[in-house]
Amino acid sequence: MRIYDVTLTISPTLPVWPGDPPVDLHRVSKMEEGEVCNVTRMNISVHTGTHVDAPYHFLAKGKTVETLDLKTLTGRAYVVEISNVDVVTAADIEAADIPPRTKRVLFKTRNSNHWTKNHSQFNTNFVGLSADAAKYLVERGVKLVGVDYLSVAPYEDTIPTHQILLKAGVIIVEGLDLSKISQGRYTFYCLPLKIAKADGAPARAMLIGV
Amino acid sequence: MRIYDVTLTISPTLPVWPGDPPVDLHRVSKMEEGEVCNVTRMNISVHTGTHVDAPYHFLAKGKTVETLDLKTLTGRAYVVEISNVDVVTAADIEAADIPPRTKRVLFKTRNSNHWTKNHSQFNTNFVGLSADAAKYLVERGVKLVGVDYLSVAPYEDTIPTHQILLKAGVIIVEGLDLSKISQGRYTFYCLPLKIAKADGAPARAMLIGV
Repeated sequence: MRIYDVTLTISPTLPVWPGDPPVDLHRVSKMEEGEVCNVTRMNISVHTGTHVDAPYHFLAKGKTVETLDLKTLTGRAYVVEISNVDVVTAADIEAADIPPRTKRVLFKTRNSNHWTKNHSQFNTNFVGLSADAAKYLVERGVKLVGVDYLSVAPYEDTIPTHQILLKAGVIIVEGLDLSKISQGRYTFYCLPLKIAKADGAPARAMLIGV
Repeated sequence: MRIYDVTLTISPTLPVWPGDPPVDLHRVSKMEEGEVCNVTRMNISVHTGTHVDAPYHFLAKGKTVETLDLKTLTGRAYVVEISNVDVVTAADIEAADIPPRTKRVLFKTRNSNHWTKNHSQFNTNFVGLSADAAKYLVERGVKLVGVDYLSVAPYEDTIPTHQILLKAGVIIVEGLDLSKISQGRYTFYCLPLKIAKADGAPARAMLIGV
């Protein structure tokens, strides 16, 4: 059984959404200053690094992140590699031969190359999913969609893709590092922090080879 | 397959270590004010709620949390109920008949009662593990120890228990809500945030019945 950690490391150099403050980590208790132990505080957006979007992120009356079902966040998943596109469309997904009845789909695109290169500046030219891709995934019965950049939707058109998926109860996982992952079947574990009434939560995510 | 979420909810009423600022969650983007989406920020200690301690928490040259092995953080575990003590000692653990070769032990004590009662004030009278309990667990070959309050060590004597476990490479998981869990065998998944160079990390943790 091999475990693949597909989580981005939360650090001050992790790219954040344009306009957001950078990741802020600071030690408030330091052993080298005579304290009993080291203690770090963090001040971050709940959409930092590898994270989950709850419906409330884009739906004013949507469910919040602590209510998302752990049964959807864990289980069999398919990693599909679509490497040659700027936007993933329904046609791209249809052509990709995802196994029938797949409930969790993780998209590996050229975005994952960023994570092998100490990527620290947000790249607005990332690959996202089009609105028709979102509709297609909902119609196929997909319950969880994962992507390898910090948003599931193209930078210039964030609303439709998010709303279509979130209205249908699809869990969105953003910021996966799939650079070391080959296309195929895995077991996926994505455990987001349980944050009261929040629109999202940072998570740790891993794939296990099947 | 039944999933039990054993994670505390991160909210402003969650008790924090005496002297620490409370959990700070605030929405910095609000749909009701015309924004495209809701976005929450959080400002918390990495030792908030259900969390993992890395060696660096109590050892000036210890490993930091992003390097902890996911193989230790996930796998078969035993929940042992020790309900009638103020401090868990080696003798208490020895008397508890934990199955041989158990690598992960989670202690359910009277602490778990707090989590059923909207507990919000830190209780310094919580049940912790004595230094001799820590030594006994290390000698047994235990690799992960979980507890149901916010520290593995008694409030008045934090250093020895932490240092003995962390020096031996034992992962400490604190702040588990075991109130709904019966003694017995489970599969445990504890996925902490992957925070660069940190002394700990908040986590989501679940048990699966076997």
